[in-house]
Amino acid sequence: MKDIYQIAVVPGDGIGPEVAAAAVRCLDALFGPAGPLVLREHPAGAELYRRSGESFPAATYAACRDADAILHGAAGLPGIVHPDGTEAGLDFTLRLRFELDLFANIRPIRLYPGVRSPLAEVAPGGIDYVIVRENSEGLYAARGAGAQLRGELAVDTLVQTRKGVERIVRQAFELARSSRGAPADGVRRVTCVDKANVLRSYAFFRAVFDEVAAEYPEIEAEHGLIDAMAMYLVTRPGHYNVIVTENMFGDILSDLAAATIGGLGLAPSAEIGVTQGLFQASHGSAPDIAGKGIANPYGTLLSAAAMLDWLATRHADARLGAGAHRLRQAVEAAIAEGILGRDLGGRYGSAEITEAVCARLG
Amino acid sequence: MKDIYQIAVVPGDGIGPEVAAAAVRCLDALFGPAGPLVLREHPAGAELYRRSGESFPAATYAACRDADAILHGAAGLPGIVHPDGTEAGLDFTLRLRFELDLFANIRPIRLYPGVRSPLAEVAPGGIDYVIVRENSEGLYAARGAGAQLRGELAVDTLVQTRKGVERIVRQAFELARSSRGAPADGVRRVTCVDKANVLRSYAFFRAVFDEVAAEYPEIEAEHGLIDAMAMYLVTRPGHYNVIVTENMFGDILSDLAAATIGGLGLAPSAEIGVTQGLFQASHGSAPDIAGKGIANPYGTLLSAAAMLDWLATRHADARLGAGAHRLRQAVEAAIAEGILGRDLGGRYGSAEITEAVCARLG
Ligand SMILES: CC(C)[C@H](C(=O)O)[C@@H](O)C(=O)O
Ligand SMILES: CC(C)[C@H](C(=O)O)[C@@H](O)C(=O)O
Repeated sequence: MKDIYQIAVVPGDGIGPEVAAAAVRCLDALFGPAGPLVLREHPAGAELYRRSGESFPAATYAACRDADAILHGAAGLPGIVHPDGTEAGLDFTLRLRFELDLFANIRPIRLYPGVRSPLAEVAPGGIDYVIVRENSEGLYAARGAGAQLRGELAVDTLVQTRKGVERIVRQAFELARSSRGAPADGVRRVTCVDKANVLRSYAFFRAVFDEVAAEYPEIEAEHGLIDAMAMYLVTRPGHYNVIVTENMFGDILSDLAAATIGGLGLAPSAEIGVTQGLFQASHGSAPDIAGKGIANPYGTLLSAAAMLDWLATRHADARLGAGAHRLRQAVEAAIAEGILGRDLGGRYGSAEITEAVCARLG
Repeated sequence: MKDIYQIAVVPGDGIGPEVAAAAVRCLDALFGPAGPLVLREHPAGAELYRRSGESFPAATYAACRDADAILHGAAGLPGIVHPDGTEAGLDFTLRLRFELDLFANIRPIRLYPGVRSPLAEVAPGGIDYVIVRENSEGLYAARGAGAQLRGELAVDTLVQTRKGVERIVRQAFELARSSRGAPADGVRRVTCVDKANVLRSYAFFRAVFDEVAAEYPEIEAEHGLIDAMAMYLVTRPGHYNVIVTENMFGDILSDLAAATIGGLGLAPSAEIGVTQGLFQASHGSAPDIAGKGIANPYGTLLSAAAMLDWLATRHADARLGAGAHRLRQAVEAAIAEGILGRDLGGRYGSAEITEAVCARLG
C-alpha cells in the first residue's frame, strides 16, 4: 500500500481527450481532493506527430514507465502514417505493449441490463465472458520489422514462444479459477482459439495450451478454431467463460464480441505485465465524432475501474478496491437507467453521462 | 462448349460423403441420364490417411487437375494430424489451392426467405454480399514451411505479392461491376479489409487495392480494418456489397458472415483459378453428426450451382447456365417452404431435403 499513486494520463487523439477527461472527472469525484491518486497528463499521438514529427515523446514514455499505472484515451488518426504506411498514432499503445512487456490484454465482454444486444434472443446476463488476448507476440511483434521488396512483395512474421504462450494461458486459467462465475451451463471453462489445423505456429500455441491446461484439472479446457469461433460468438455467446488466444485473433474476436453487447463503447480493456498496466477502452479514436461532445465514455470509465482493481490487488490497498467497486456500480446504475449515448440509441452526451455516473458514486 | 464435362467428385470425410451424394443426386436429376456431366468419385482425406498413410493419392490429384471442375464434400478429422500438429485431411483442399493456383475464393452471403438470422432486425434480403477471399498467399502460404525450434518457438510467415493482391482485387471489382445488385443504399462498393494501421504487409495490400480501385471510378472503394469489420458484419451487414481481403481474414470473416445468415449449412464456396475450379460448401466435415443422415446439403447444392455457372461462362454453354439457375431456384423454393434441417430449427434429414430439391427442379 502506498499513500499516493501516480497515474500517467494520456488523452491522445480524436475522442481520446473527451473520454479521458470523463475518467479523470469521475476519479476525482470518487476520491475527493485528498484522494490517493495523482493524475498527470502527458502528450502523445497522431496529432502530435503531425505537429512535431514525434508521436511518442521520450518524456511521456518515461512518465508512463515510472507511473503506477497508465490511463489512455484513444490514439491514431487514419492518414497520419509512417513511411511504411502504418499509423503513427499507434506508436504509443504498441511501444508500451512491447517495451513494458504488457503481455496480457484482458477484455471482459458483458451484456449489461439496460442495453439491447443486436443478437436476437440474448438477455442481459446472457453474455458474460472474458477474452484474454496475448499482447506481446504473434504478427504484432513484426511491426516495423517486416520487409517490402521493390513494391513487389511484403512480408511479416508470426512468432509464438513457449514463454509467451505459457504465461498467457496460465493467466487465463487463473482468471477462470479465481474470480469468474461460470456460464449458464455451470461449467467453468477456458477456450483456446487457434488455427492449429493449418499452421504450425498455432499448433504450437495449442500444444502449449494443452500442457498448461493439465495443471488445472478442475477447469474444462476446450479448443476452437478461429473461423468457427467467429461464428460461435454470434450463435452461442452464452457458452463462453474465459477465452484465450494469440494477439491478432484476440484483436478480431474482442471487437466482434463487443458488437454483441452493444458495441465498443461499453468494452473496457486492461493490458498488464509484471510491473505495469495500461488501461483504455477497446474502441479507437473515432475522429468522425471527435469534439462533438457525444463520445461514449463508459468503456474508459470501466477501464479506469479495472485500473483501480489492478492497483488494489498489486498494492493490497482496500481503498482502491472499494473505489473500483463504487465506480463500476455507478456505471452499471447509469446504464440500467437508460443514460446512454447515440451509439446505443440514447440521447445523452459525454458530459451528461459523466455527471450521471458521478452523481451515482454514492 | 463441350459435349461432356468431367467432374471430379471427392466425398472426403465426416459428412462429406453425405453432402456430396446429395449434390450428385441433384445434378443427375437436373440433366437426366444423357446430360452433359460425367461425375466420377475419387478418394482423399483424413480417413484415407488413417488407413493408408496417404491423404491425397497421386491418382486423385491427377483426376482433379485434369477434370473440368472439382466438387468436394468436406475433409479433415480432428486428431488425424501430421507430425507438426496440422490436420492431414486438409491436404486435399490446401494442395489444390496452391498447386492449381485457385487464387479466388468467392463466398456469397445471403439471408434467404424462410431463414431466421440470429441478428435481430434483419429481414430476408437484408443481407446480401460476397466475400472475395485471396486464396493463394498470406499466412497459408507458410503451411508446412514454418519453423519450430526445440519446442521453444514457432514461426510462420505472411506473404503478400503485388501479383496476388492485384488479381484478387480486380476480381472483386469485376464482380461488383458485372453481376451484383447494390445494397440498400444503392451504392455499389468494394470494401478492402486489412490491418494496414499496424503491419506493413497489410499496408501493402491496401496500397495495391487503392491502385486497382482507381481503374473503377464508378464503384465506391472503401477500407475497413479487420477488427472493425468483425463488428460491422454484425451491426450493419446491409451496408456491404463486395468485400475483398487476404486469406486468413477471409477465412474468419466468411464463417462470421455465415453465422449471420443461419450458419455454414447455407454458405457455398467457389475456389477458382485461371484454368480450374473447386466447389465445396464453406462448412467442415462435422464428424459429430456424420453418418446420421442429418447433414444439411444446401451449402453443397449451392456450390454445385456455382460450379455450373462457372463452367457455363468458361465454356459459353447455355445448358449449364440454365441448369445452375434451375438448381438455385429449387434450393431457394425448398428453403422458403421451410424444408430445413436441425441446424436451422427444422426437422428434415439430408435425404428428404435432397428429394425436395429434386422435386422442385421443374
Ligand atoms: C489500435 C490498435 C493498434 C489496436 C490493436 O490492433 O491491437 C486496437 O485495435 C486494439 O484492439 O487494442
Ligand atoms: C478447412 C480449412 C483448411 C479451410 C481454411 O482454413 O481455409 C476452411 O476453414 C475454409 O474456410 O475453407
